[in-house]
Formats: sequence, structure tokens, C-alpha cells
Amino acid sequence: MLLIRNGDIVTATDRFTADILCDNGVISAVGMNLEVPEGTPVIDATGKHVFPGFIDPHVHVYLPFMGTVSKDNYATASKAALMGGTTTLIEMCCPSRTEDPLDAIRLWKSKADGISFCDYTFHMGVTRFDETTADALRHIVSIEGITSFKVFLAYKGAFGIEDTELFQTLSLAKELGVVVTAHCENADLVAEKQKKLISEGKLGPEWHEPSRPVTVEAGGCRHLMTYAEMTGAQVYVVHTSCIPAVEAIEEARKRGVKAWIETVSPYLTLDSSYAELPNFEGAKFVMSPPIRSQEHGDFLWTALAEGIIDTVGTDHAPFDYATQKHMGHPDPAKCVDAHFQTTGTPGNFTLIPNGIPSVEERIKLLYTEGVRRGRIDLQTLVRCASTKPAEIFGLYPRKGAIVPGSDADLVIWDPEWRGKISAATHSMATDYSAFEGKSIVGRADTVTVRGKIMVQNGEWVGEKGWGEFLPREPKKYGDC
Amino acid sequence: MLLIRNGDIVTATDRFTADILCDNGVISAVGMNLEVPEGTPVIDATGKHVFPGFIDPHVHVYLPFMGTVSKDNYATASKAALMGGTTTLIEMCCPSRTEDPLDAIRLWKSKADGISFCDYTFHMGVTRFDETTADALRHIVSIEGITSFKVFLAYKGAFGIEDTELFQTLSLAKELGVVVTAHCENADLVAEKQKKLISEGKLGPEWHEPSRPVTVEAGGCRHLMTYAEMTGAQVYVVHTSCIPAVEAIEEARKRGVKAWIETVSPYLTLDSSYAELPNFEGAKFVMSPPIRSQEHGDFLWTALAEGIIDTVGTDHAPFDYATQKHMGHPDPAKCVDAHFQTTGTPGNFTLIPNGIPSVEERIKLLYTEGVRRGRIDLQTLVRCASTKPAEIFGLYPRKGAIVPGSDADLVIWDPEWRGKISAATHSMATDYSAFEGKSIVGRADTVTVRGKIMVQNGEWVGEKGWGEFLPREPKKYGDC
Amino acid sequence: MLLIRNGDIVTATDRFTADILCDNGVISAVGMNLEVPEGTPVIDATGKHVFPGFIDPHVHVYLPFMGTVSKDNYATASKAALMGGTTTLIEMCCPSRTEDPLDAIRLWKSKADGISFCDYTFHMGVTRFDETTADALRHIVSIEGITSFKVFLAYKGAFGIEDTELFQTLSLAKELGVVVTAHCENADLVAEKQKKLISEGKLGPEWHEPSRPVTVEAGGCRHLMTYAEMTGAQVYVVHTSCIPAVEAIEEARKRGVKAWIETVSPYLTLDSSYAELPNFEGAKFVMSPPIRSQEHGDFLWTALAEGIIDTVGTDHAPFDYATQKHMGHPDPAKCVDAHFQTTGTPGNFTLIPNGIPSVEERIKLLYTEGVRRGRIDLQTLVRCASTKPAEIFGLYPRKGAIVPGSDADLVIWDPEWRGKISAATHSMATDYSAFEGKSIVGRADTVTVRGKIMVQNGEWVGEKGWGEFLPREPKKYGDC
Amino acid sequence: MLLIRNGDIVTATDRFTADILCDNGVISAVGMNLEVPEGTPVIDATGKHVFPGFIDPHVHVYLPFMGTVSKDNYATASKAALMGGTTTLIEMCCPSRTEDPLDAIRLWKSKADGISFCDYTFHMGVTRFDETTADALRHIVSIEGITSFKVFLAYKGAFGIEDTELFQTLSLAKELGVVVTAHCENADLVAEKQKKLISEGKLGPEWHEPSRPVTVEAGGCRHLMTYAEMTGAQVYVVHTSCIPAVEAIEEARKRGVKAWIETVSPYLTLDSSYAELPNFEGAKFVMSPPIRSQEHGDFLWTALAEGIIDTVGTDHAPFDYATQKHMGHPDPAKCVDAHFQTTGTPGNFTLIPNGIPSVEERIKLLYTEGVRRGRIDLQTLVRCASTKPAEIFGLYPRKGAIVPGSDADLVIWDPEWRGKISAATHSMATDYSAFEGKSIVGRADTVTVRGKIMVQNGEWVGEKGWGEFLPREPKKYGDC
Repeated sequence: MLLIRNGDIVTATDRFTADILCDNGVISAVGMNLEVPEGTPVIDATGKHVFPGFIDPHVHVYLPFMGTVSKDNYATASKAALMGGTTTLIEMCCPSRTEDPLDAIRLWKSKADGISFCDYTFHMGVTRFDETTADALRHIVSIEGITSFKVFLAYKGAFGIEDTELFQTLSLAKELGVVVTAHCENADLVAEKQKKLISEGKLGPEWHEPSRPVTVEAGGCRHLMTYAEMTGAQVYVVHTSCIPAVEAIEEARKRGVKAWIETVSPYLTLDSSYAELPNFEGAKFVMSPPIRSQEHGDFLWTALAEGIIDTVGTDHAPFDYATQKHMGHPDPAKCVDAHFQTTGTPGNFTLIPNGIPSVEERIKLLYTEGVRRGRIDLQTLVRCASTKPAEIFGLYPRKGAIVPGSDADLVIWDPEWRGKISAATHSMATDYSAFEGKSIVGRADTVTVRGKIMVQNGEWVGEKGWGEFLPREPKKYGDC
Repeated sequence: MLLIRNGDIVTATDRFTADILCDNGVISAVGMNLEVPEGTPVIDATGKHVFPGFIDPHVHVYLPFMGTVSKDNYATASKAALMGGTTTLIEMCCPSRTEDPLDAIRLWKSKADGISFCDYTFHMGVTRFDETTADALRHIVSIEGITSFKVFLAYKGAFGIEDTELFQTLSLAKELGVVVTAHCENADLVAEKQKKLISEGKLGPEWHEPSRPVTVEAGGCRHLMTYAEMTGAQVYVVHTSCIPAVEAIEEARKRGVKAWIETVSPYLTLDSSYAELPNFEGAKFVMSPPIRSQEHGDFLWTALAEGIIDTVGTDHAPFDYATQKHMGHPDPAKCVDAHFQTTGTPGNFTLIPNGIPSVEERIKLLYTEGVRRGRIDLQTLVRCASTKPAEIFGLYPRKGAIVPGSDADLVIWDPEWRGKISAATHSMATDYSAFEGKSIVGRADTVTVRGKIMVQNGEWVGEKGWGEFLPREPKKYGDC
Repeated sequence: MLLIRNGDIVTATDRFTADILCDNGVISAVGMNLEVPEGTPVIDATGKHVFPGFIDPHVHVYLPFMGTVSKDNYATASKAALMGGTTTLIEMCCPSRTEDPLDAIRLWKSKADGISFCDYTFHMGVTRFDETTADALRHIVSIEGITSFKVFLAYKGAFGIEDTELFQTLSLAKELGVVVTAHCENADLVAEKQKKLISEGKLGPEWHEPSRPVTVEAGGCRHLMTYAEMTGAQVYVVHTSCIPAVEAIEEARKRGVKAWIETVSPYLTLDSSYAELPNFEGAKFVMSPPIRSQEHGDFLWTALAEGIIDTVGTDHAPFDYATQKHMGHPDPAKCVDAHFQTTGTPGNFTLIPNGIPSVEERIKLLYTEGVRRGRIDLQTLVRCASTKPAEIFGLYPRKGAIVPGSDADLVIWDPEWRGKISAATHSMATDYSAFEGKSIVGRADTVTVRGKIMVQNGEWVGEKGWGEFLPREPKKYGDC
Repeated sequence: MLLIRNGDIVTATDRFTADILCDNGVISAVGMNLEVPEGTPVIDATGKHVFPGFIDPHVHVYLPFMGTVSKDNYATASKAALMGGTTTLIEMCCPSRTEDPLDAIRLWKSKADGISFCDYTFHMGVTRFDETTADALRHIVSIEGITSFKVFLAYKGAFGIEDTELFQTLSLAKELGVVVTAHCENADLVAEKQKKLISEGKLGPEWHEPSRPVTVEAGGCRHLMTYAEMTGAQVYVVHTSCIPAVEAIEEARKRGVKAWIETVSPYLTLDSSYAELPNFEGAKFVMSPPIRSQEHGDFLWTALAEGIIDTVGTDHAPFDYATQKHMGHPDPAKCVDAHFQTTGTPGNFTLIPNGIPSVEERIKLLYTEGVRRGRIDLQTLVRCASTKPAEIFGLYPRKGAIVPGSDADLVIWDPEWRGKISAATHSMATDYSAFEGKSIVGRADTVTVRGKIMVQNGEWVGEKGWGEFLPREPKKYGDC
């Protein structure tokens, strides 16, 4: 048992002051002056917000990608998540096109099982669709408890799928009641742009954004929307970065397409000038779609406040700056990696592993840059980073709510804490932070997972392996 | 103390099974297997929904209008509201242009004080704006606790105001933090249309809709939006009936205007064919704006599900069919009333008192036609008919929520009850029902107001005068 | 007879090289190497454009307004027009609300008759609509040959009309087949804004634009569109200055409203910074709607190129800077005029006579700033400034075309002439030019009116009184 | 020399009565009472319209396709065109993916050279893009005088190209100043739909439309627009059939994409019910995109009148009903063709050769259904079927205009002729007409090509081989 006394409880809709009693890992009561047996641990939350545990709907932990493997493991990533107030991770399971899907999901599960501090589930990456795929996916949904897919319109040759595969994936998803998440960039157009820039000697990280302009992303969105319209599948566009992409999805919604929109922390809090930093500093900010100019970020905040954007994730994808991002360094003297060693050709922006470590900073950034600057209110914070991800991905009401019966995943938030982000102090495994030096207001003071305290007074007290896999049920379409 | 055991609790966001404990008129705890002192009354809500008490943001109880006075008084109207699951009424205080505003609000309050069964507040009708008005309104806001205004772009000569008055009202509202609700129809265009139709001998109730076509309403909305944009005031368009009106408001929202949209039950559940019923039956369905053709109703349901429409009220305005609606009967032998007696000219559709008695049926209709037909989900029902009205009009979190500290206004809803609507059994004072004979699924089984049971097992057990006036505080703009 | 040899003929659609033969005031043939009787005057147009005579659909010549009278008379205005390539004027006949319409049109005609150098007609200002108005207007249409009306939503108390008058005017126009041109600004909102700014001591010309923000104009457009939609009348919005006004009209077109859009030269070539010039210089640029910021001008050019904007006029309204614009000077030492003398209160921006002298510069500006900068092509120049005005206002094909049978109104344009605009050299009567010092490319080298040469080699050779009134026929709606 | 006396001349903008003198194959003069040498042939056009010769921007004459070859040859097709008032054909040169482009254009030219009655040019089909393609296309543009390309997003395996090929084609087109015409349907989605329908035993021609729903076409348009936006190429969408396709292109135009829209006669004058005719009659109406339901046709007329749709072609693709359309007959007893003979499997709708013979009827249909029913005016007829095709495809002002110097391609149109369409009387080679029995008002009475009379009083007087290939010049982008 655990009593959280007198917190300023914030949900996706409500805000009120009350006590929360946790028992057997779930919330058993929410009330005024709740009475508890003597000896029950009590946390005084007076003057603090109490949020439902946050859910990151888009992270990579284990990610073999672009000739290397992401830096975090479940111990580091889940600890970092909890330190930042995120109590559930939804990781992308991303097999290569030659991997067996069932093997893949089991491999990905094995990376977390007994290791993760926080709860977790997976989006099943569909990176190929042949005659055996449908059966494997049916099994993964019904037996393995995974009820969301992930497809890539980008990264052809790696994770990307062909259009007929896309059609089949969406058709199956519709049949099974599965949501399909999608990375929407037109792979062919990116390839053409990359070729052209490199042929012009434009090699540095500052050319990453121009190689994937907003049209490429909006075009990818429009393409997915056509397929969703044809199949009736429900789709979820991950990491939407720009105005025309959001507009493309809105137009499709008007035609009756059921589509959710996710954006991610870097697009809200950074801009394209970061990738233009000199001395290869820009490589730290290389992710896809790329971070856009300021006007796109401003637009995303407004769209978030108005409910046009549904969720905020991170696309956490941690690669070290010194040893991994440098695979794409154009200077032979500074380029690291097999590519250079085997080909003798130094790097360019297309060889910089894509991704930004960010699972730890999402809520701090949303609170500091969003709530405290008046761009979103507290309820919107909870909605986009907890309740909506839970609803969309079948975790609700176990997660995403502060109601009796829900898991006692709670974040007691100190709104007055002040500090700075730094790689020196973060819990992620990477050697740099994309938000180094940034001033932050507010932090997760105390965090519980199913009633167990993992963070206390901002200090780590987590128990290894406490995290559980969250099996999910398919939903009937129309539920959400 | 009162314990509601094991209900399927539905809020604007959440749905879960738990007990609700009420103490001292407020909800003191929401939890699993709550323990209560022996003797505490317990209601078993197993298998039933528990909703926060519904709020009707748009009713008329005392309404001197079109040469007559509405039929209900606070005893009948508030009883009818409660029987239907509505626990709070927001009535329009509608002085004539010659009445003093302060006198008016006191008169309207006196009609409810000590009589109303349910809680209530008022929108202050601003039907004139001269040199004394600003002071009176400041007083009404700060001393009388009324923080919303109502203006009529229609009904020139009665309640309607001129454009400069509109500008001044909105400017003052912006300054005071008051929301301005507005009836948007272009009065001059209605007058022209009425004149033309009557000159052509088109006198029956079926000509009411053609006399106020959708363009008149959309034009009114666009006009209000221009004034809201100029003053920065927050506005709330009441009883929106049609596609172009909603579109006009959406366009303004894109320009940054803060505007909420209300529709009302009749537009969702009836259509224009009703006003065309022969033998003057159509008069029962005369209200303004008029009930539109089916496609508009279908559109309103979709817009409600998508959150474009914010709230559903009733515009309850009860006039008897036999003695009041007949004031507009074109047949001298059947026309009742002073107008006929004084002028010798029988009635026409412009003399039929506008309004439909509906405060009692709103939730039944939303549940039967909305939830059970799959057009909206349960959370949307709560949101549009309880939580959003509370938020917009400054009643939240006292009303509109099931959280500790909120008033124990609760509706235990039997989802399996089946019956029919009839004037023979309704609690409203009028001699007819616009929904006569309509089959209904679900009803308010038990209803509490601040912890007091007013309806039990569908039977009336209310205590006269239990209802209280709800004083409100102005909000800082940007709050909602 | 007159032969124009070998010109580069440009029409609204076509461009080709040929000869034009004029006979009896009309074009009798367009062909290659036309043969003419010996002695026929021949103008060699090799290397020059030949345009159909331009039509200015929006000028004021005689204008009693704001306590003074505009500076030009028909001799000066029509000469200036011709020097600039404009061969037909459509003047606003603007009676005060107390004037009789028939007296007014006769008065306005008398100002031009026997004096004008170029051809002309009028838009009949409807500045009041009472029981006698309909008959007067019918007479003006059928007997006086005037088939377009003008209404003002702005200038209440002077020319502005009430909404019921607007409805009646549009209804009559629909019945008669008359186009209604309209000045769309919300008069009440302007009045409120003016009051507020003056109360804050904001008196100079730089406050003119803020007193009539774009919302006021867009609101006026939306208002007119509602009335056009209700009556079915065809409307023409004069001097559209800004993005939201154009958007408001486009939305109405999508609803089926028949509406044309005019912009005028100053909005395309100046911006709001001019009215902010110090030392009361800004007063030279005061017109209504006001000249907007650069982005609006850029938008207007694009909308013109895309055919969204139909016509370009001038709203020529000539007031002297020293003696008339100074009526609004806030410095008592510099304020001229009766207002100051009678009230002792010096001027402010609301007392500066509205208007910019510009009839002479329209085509030069469109050519220099539009054609030569690649914003519009030559055909668009002809379309917006000649053919479309002729079509919309019933002058086509007598005017606006280079085809056999059309009036031989021709402009031989030297595309290589270079010079500067200056009040020192212009033909208008005013003591200043709003475009003083502006570099210009191209000019009307030779201009004919019904075959008579009025300008030759850029020199004035006009014959007084050559201009004729152009009687027009109403058109069946749907013609254009 | 030839004089056409006193015709009612209609151009894209103008309408006037005059004489037209033709000399040396071109128009030498347009004038009133033109004098001509004695003996000059004179046609009295009093009471008749004179149009510039119409241009069909989209025909197939020689078309090996779907296992057969289209029925017409240049003799029959060009005669049919002229009988219908069309004096210039732009044929699709459609090599298979394995054919050499240069061989192809020479082959296609050889089919017309010395045979065609009317003038002609080609769109060069780009059905593959490999390392040799760019050079071949450069040659075709600069030496062969072909300045427009055609790509197919549909018909994968036959003419369809991959996305990287599309990108390269558009990039080259942009560089060369070439317009790219495109058939926009998503090939993969069509294939999936076809598979599904056939597996369900849905084999008849009535399933053709459902196999290619509007989403497939709109999706194809959106795809092309993304590529046009990325490359800056100018594109022209052929045979647009439905509302969402037009909307998709309009959205792209707002983003700055330069795109023209073509529709074709069948979409304007037939509807989807024709393909549902029993007894395989429906096969006569199978073309792609399919003919849609009535509301789409109505929309297309409106969009044409408003200038949103630029051109009207035919997509003339003539296959015999008895011997060719029957290749897709599902009844083994009625199925003709190699497919059945080799596989033993009878036909289905996917095996019906796509196309409708219509080159002869376009202008009659536009006049009867468009002009006479008030949907478009005469100038729009000329604009969409003559002037705009000429401008877009670099034939202007040689074609598409009635001005001195233009080819004397003229259509003297008898507006009062009445008759019926029938395969029994048409000049096309096919054994059926899709418009059999349709009543027609107006016909081409007399038609000239470069001054030579080919049709006189509705009778054929054409001279074989009179038609010439029209070499074209690339245009600088921005010209149109």
C-alpha cells in the first residue's frame, strides 16, 4: 500500500486536489482525506502535480541500423525513461527484411525481459510481406499480444516496404483490428536528393534536412492516406515534423480516413539551425524526418494545443557522437567506421546514424517549453503524452488514467524545480545530449510503477526487472 | 453520506468500475470496495453507467416572448430536467430592451429562488447597451456572480441589439473575462423573407424554415465572428443548426477567433419535415433557427463526434400547443389570442411562439440516437452535455466531473430501460411533446444533486427548493 | 481612316503581328499588309505593342466629399486618363442621401457632357432606398442607360446605406440585370476604432490604416456576400486591398455567389509605410480601404496573375495636398479648413479627404511593376484593365477588344520608353503625385478614341468634347 | 484565297461578326466587308459561328494495347476528327517498355505521314527510363520537334513507369522545357482491387469502375503532384474523371505546382450506369479511369465553366465491340481471342480493351450538352477545345486563334443542325458508337485546314495526305 497525499491531480480532462491510495499495484481509491492502516507509506504531494505515468509511444532501444547498433539497452533506456517521468515504453521491433517476424519479436522481447525497469510493449515492424507473413502476424497479434504494426515508407532496402506489401499489411491490420504506425517519407525522392547533393560535394550534416525536404514527408503522408482510404485501416503517422505533412493528414481526415498524428520532442524544441552547427556538431541533430525551421515548430505547438496533433513521443534512437555519429564525418581524418575502412571513402551525411537520444527529456521539455510558456495547458500535457497513447494503442484504462483499477503508475511532479540538461548527468547511455545546457523548470520528483517507487525525490531507487511486458487485445475498429 | 457501489463510471475521458462516496454534498472518494460506516445508504449501480450530472447550457424557463409567457415555472422545469438526468440549468435572463438589467437579473433569480429542485445559473441577456449598461453589467458580473452574457442578432425590436451595442458588449466582455453567447441570425434578412412569404399568402408553419434559410444563420455567424475578431472576445454560438453555420465558425477559428459551438437536441433528432405536418401540427416544431433537412442533422452528429461542436443544449422554450402555438394559426376559426382579437387578422407562422419543450429529453435522445446508434461514444455524451458546458461557463470542477471535491451530482443510468416519450407522462408543463411516441433506450434511474437523491428508480422523490444558485467567477481569457 | 501598321497586337488572349485599319471610328479590319487608299494616315507600330483602349472601372471626377470637392474636372481627368492609355472612364455617381437620384445622374452627366476628351459612363450610387427609389432606378437603367449600381457599406451618414436598403438594392438589381459594385468596410467597426484612436491622441495619417484593419474589410465583404447569396444579385467588390478580403469572396464563390473582385493600383505598388511618412507626408497616401503591408500587395499580384482578381482600377480621387489633405492636419498652425475655423479643434486622420490621384498612372504601373517584373503577362494586363471591365459592365464588344466592329480605341505602347512620374509633368489637377519620382518603363505613345488620335508620340493632341457618354443595356444574369 | 463572309466569329475571349480572308494557308485578314479579287471563293457564314479549328490534345490512333491493336488508322481517325470539327490531333506515341524511343516516334510518325487528312503532332510516351533514355529524349525534343511527354502511373508492366523513372523524366522535362502529361491511377491499388473482384467471381464490365475507384485516381494525382513539386516540372493530368482528383490537383496548385487539368468527353456526357448495361453492352463503355456517377460529371461541367479544368480531349481509343471488346467476355461461348484460346479461361473485365471511340463527337457533345444547356458559353468551348491546348502544347498562335498569321484552320458551325449520332453514319472505323442514338444540335458545316476545305456543307471533300506534322519548340517555363 502507498498513499499519495493531497496532490494536485491532473488528468486528460480534470484537475483536482485529493489523495490517491495504491494497493496491490493498482489505484484503489482517489479521495479526500483517505484513511489508511497505520504504517502505510505516505508521500506528501502538497504543492505538486500528480500525473498518470507517461507513455512514450515511439522509442528505439535495440536498433541495429545503418551499420551499427543503438547505444542504450533496456536497463539504461528504461531507467532514463523513469527519471524523466515516462513509465511505459512502446518500442519499435524492427527486423531486417530477411529476418523472420516471430524470431524478431522474441528477440526484442528477450532484450527487455527481466531487465527493464518500466513496463513496455512493442509495435511490430512489418518490413516484408510475403506468403508467410500474414500467418506470422496473426500469431504475433493473438499469441504474442502485440496489436500495432509499424511500416516504413522510407529506408528502402533496410526496413522499407513496397506498395503491394503496404496494401497487404493495411488490409490485414483492418481485419485484425490493429493500428498501423508509419514512417512517411518518400524513399525514392530522398535517394534522388541524396545522390544530387553528394554529387555536388555537399557532404556535411547541414545537408541532411535539404535531402529530405518537407515535400518528401508530405508526399509520404499523402501516399499512406490513399492506402488507408482504400483499405479502411486505422493509421498513426509517427514523428510528423512539418506544416504540409499535418495538412496532408487533415485533408485525409476530412475524406473520412482514420489517422492519428504524432510529433516528437525534437521538432517542438529544436530547429534546423542545430544541424548547421560547425565542426560536425550538427551530426548530433541528424534524425529523419529532419528537424525543420522555426515556423514548423511553432505550428506544431499550435496544432498540439488544438488537438490536431494527438500524441508526443520521442523517436528515441541513441547513437554516440564520438564513435557512431562520426561514421558520417566527411573528413577522412575524423571518420570512424567500417565503411571508411572498407571503401576508403570517408563519410557524408547519409552515413550518420539517424536519431536523437531523448526518452529522458520529453516531459521536462513539454512542461518547460509548453506548459510554462503557455502554449499548452496541463491537461493537454497529460493527454498527448499519456492518455491518448494509451487509448490509441490499447493500454487504456490500465495505463493513462488516474482512476480506481488503473495501474498505480504515477508521477509526482515538482513544478518549481530548476536545473539544466546535460549528458554529464543524464541516465541515457549516449555520450552527448541534444539539449545540453538547456534550462529546465520542473521535474519528476517521485515516480511509481504499479505502486513501486522507482524514483524518489529525484533520486533513482529502481528495482531491476520490475518492468513487465504489456500484452494487448486487438480492438474493434471505431473504438477510439 | 451516500455510497454508489460498483457503477460503470463514465467521464469526459475515462471509463472504469468503482464506488463513489458522497459526503456533505460532495464526492469524497472514488475507489474500489470503499468502506463506509454502517448505516450509510448504499445504491447498487452494478450494470449501470454513472455519469456526472448533466448541465443544460441553454434553457428558457421564465420567458415573456411574442405576446405570451412560456409555460413552465422553475418547479416544473427543474423537475423535468432532473427526471431527464440534467442537474444544472443555465437559463437565459432575457429582459426587454426597456427593462433595467439589474431589475431583470433579480426578477429572474426570484423565479427560481426557493423553488428550483436543481442548481442553476443564468446567462445575462444584453438586449440594449446605453450609457448605464456597462456599470450595470459590471455589477452583475462582480456582485451577482453572473459571468456569461447573451446577445441576439435576431429578434430586432424585442431582444435584438444594434451593431454598435454588439461591439460594446463584446469589448466589455473581453475586459471582464466573460463569455458572450449569441443567437446568430440576420434579423433584417429574416424580416424581408417573412414579408415576402406572407405577401404571397404563405402563412402556415411549413413556411417558418424557408423564412430563415441557412444563409441567414451562416451570415449571422460570420457577422459575430467579425466582431469577435475585432474585440478579442470569446464567443459561444448557441443552437447551431446547419452545415454552413458550422463552417463559418470553423473558418473564423482558423483566423484565431475563440468560438465555441452549441447545437441542441431538436436539430439532431428531428428534421424539417416535421414543421410541414398538416393541420397545423407543424407549429409544434417551430423554433429559431428552424429545424433543417436531414443532411444537416447528419452533419451535426459527425461534427459532434469529431469535437467540432462543443456542447449540446436544448433551447428549452415551452409553449402550449392549444393555447399558445395557436396564436399563429392562419384559420380565423382556430386562431387564439389577443393579436387576432385586436386586429381581426388571423395568425401566420411569424406569430407562432418559437420554441420546443425539450429539457427533459436531451440525454435520453443523445443516448438513444447517439450512443446506441454508434454516432458518439459515452465519453462524448458526457463531454458535450456536462463537462464542456461546465468548463466553458466557469462551473468546473464544481460541476461536470466525478472527482473528489466536486458536487455529488450524479446520474445512475439504466442502459437497458425501454420506453416511449409522451406528453402524458412527461414532467414539463406543456400540453404536447415534440417527440411524442418516440421509442427510447435508457433512462436516468437515480439522480442526485449535491448528494441528495431527487430521482430514485425512475421515480420522483425531489425536495422543493433544494436547488441553489451557482455564483461564478470571471475567468482570465485563455483559460479554457 | 487610319492604318496602324505592323504592331504587336495584344488582346486578352492573343498576341500577333498585323495591321489595324480604322474606319468611321471603328476597327474595320485586322490583317497582314492591309491595303488602304492613298492618303490614308498611317502609323508605323513596328516594335510597339498595340492594346485595346484601357478602361478604368472605378474613378471619381466630380466628388463632393468630406467637406470639400475633388480637384479634377472632366477636362483634366479625361486628358490624364488618355495620356496614361485609358480611353474609357466609369465614374461613380455619388449623390448624398438627401439628393434625388435622377437629379444626381443628370448633374453628373452634365459635368462630362461636351467636356470629356474620352468616353465615359457611370455607376449609379444608391445611397438611400426609400419608396421612391425603385422607380427612379428603373428609369435610370432603362432611360438613362446606366446598368451598374454602387453601394457603400462604409461612410455611414454620407453615402453608406442600411442593411434593409442593401437588400432592396440587390433585389432590384437582380430583377433588372444590373451589377452592384460595393465598397465593403464595416462602418460601425471603423467608427469604433476611430473613436478609440483619437481618444488616445493618435491623430496623424499613420493611424488611418489601424483605424480600418483588414478584419473590417473582410467583414464587410462577408456581409455583402451574405446579401448577394440571399438575393441572387451579381456583385463586384471594388478596391480590394488585402488577403482576408479576397479569401472571404473566394469562399462565397464556392457557395455559388457570383462576385467579381477589383483591386486598384495603389494597393499593388505602394505599402502601408507610405502613410507613416513624417511631417504629414503620409496624408498623401490616405485612402479607404487603406494601403496595407507588403505581403498583401504581393498576394494581390499573385491573385491577379491567377485570375482570382478580375480587374484593376484606380479609385482615382484627387485632392490637393496643400489645401485639402491638410484639413486633417493635427497641428493647429498647419490645419486648413472650415472644420478648424468653426470648431477650433485642429484635424486628425479622419478629416483627411480620402483618395489618391492615380487615373493617369495605372497602366504605366501595371506594365512596369507587373509585366516587366514578370508578375503578370501582357494578356493579363489587357484582360484586367480593358477586356474584363468591358465585359462585366456591358461595354463589350464595343470596348475592350481589337476586332472588326469595335470602337477604334487603341493604345500604341512604346515598351522601351523610360521616364519618371512627377506632379510637375502629370496632367491631373492635383498638386502632388503619390508616385513622385518613380521610374517607369513604357508609355502610351499614341492613343486613339474612336479612330481619333488624342495622344501622338506621347504628346497631347486631344480635342475637347470628343468623349461620348456610353449608354448600356442590362444583361441577363448568367451572361458573363 | 478563300473568303468566309459575315460569320459570327468566336474566339477564347471575343465574339464579333466579320469576314475572314485566308491566303496561302493562313488567315491574312479579319475585317468588315473585306474586298477580294474577283473569283475568290466565298463562303457565306451568315447565321453561323466561325471557330478556330479545334485541337484534340489526347487521342490514340495507332495503339497496340492489351493484346490487340486499335481499330482506326490515320485515314479514318483524321477524317472522323475533321467531320467533327477537330483540325489538329495530338496523339500519344506509346512504345512498350522494350521498344527504343527513337524507333517508336519514327514508327508513329510513319503511320500518319502522307495519310493524315488533318495536322498532327505527338506526346512522346516515356515508358522506361534507363541510361540511354535521356539522350534519346533530348534528340526527340530538339530534332524530332516533340515537346511534350506522356507517362503512365497506371498500366504497370505495359506502359507504366517506376517512381525513380518518373523522377528522372520530370527532371529532364524541367530542364528541356517540356510539359509532361500523365495518366494518374495507382497501378498497385488497381491490381489489388482487380484480384479481389475476380476472386469473388465479379467478372462483368460493371466491375470495371469498382476496380478503379476515385481514390485510386486521386491518389495517383497526389503522387504526381509530389513529384512535380520536387522537380519543378510542369505537368498536365489527362482524362480527369472525378471530384477528388480535381481537388487533389487544386490543392497542389495552391502549393505552387504548375499543373493543367484535362477531362474528356465521355466523363462529361455519360455516367457509370452505362457500364452496367446488361448483356455485355457495358463493355462499350470501359475506359480508364472509368466513367463515374452523375455527380462527378456535373462537377466537371462546373469546374470547366469556372476555368479550373483547362482542356477537354477525348482519349479516343477505338476498339471494335464484336471482335475486340469481346476479348473480355466472361461467357466462354462469347469470348473471342487468343487469351481464351491459349488459356482456356474465358474473359473478365480486366481483359476488355480500354477505350471509347470519340474523336468525332467531342465538339458536338460540348456544344449540345454544354453550350445549349447553358453549362458553358461559346468562348469556353473555344478555350478548352482549341486555344488552351494550343497554348499549353506550343502550337499557339499557329493554331488555336483567329488572327492574321494563324493557320487558316476554321470551323463554320451550323448551330441549328439537328441529328443523331450513330455508328451507321460515323466516320470512325469502329463497329459501334458509345453515343448511339444521341440527339445532337449543331455540327461542323464547313471545315478548313490551312485554307483547304475538307468538309463542306457537312459533306466530306478532304484530300488525303493534306495533314502535316507540326514540329514544336520547347518553351521556357513560366511562358504559359
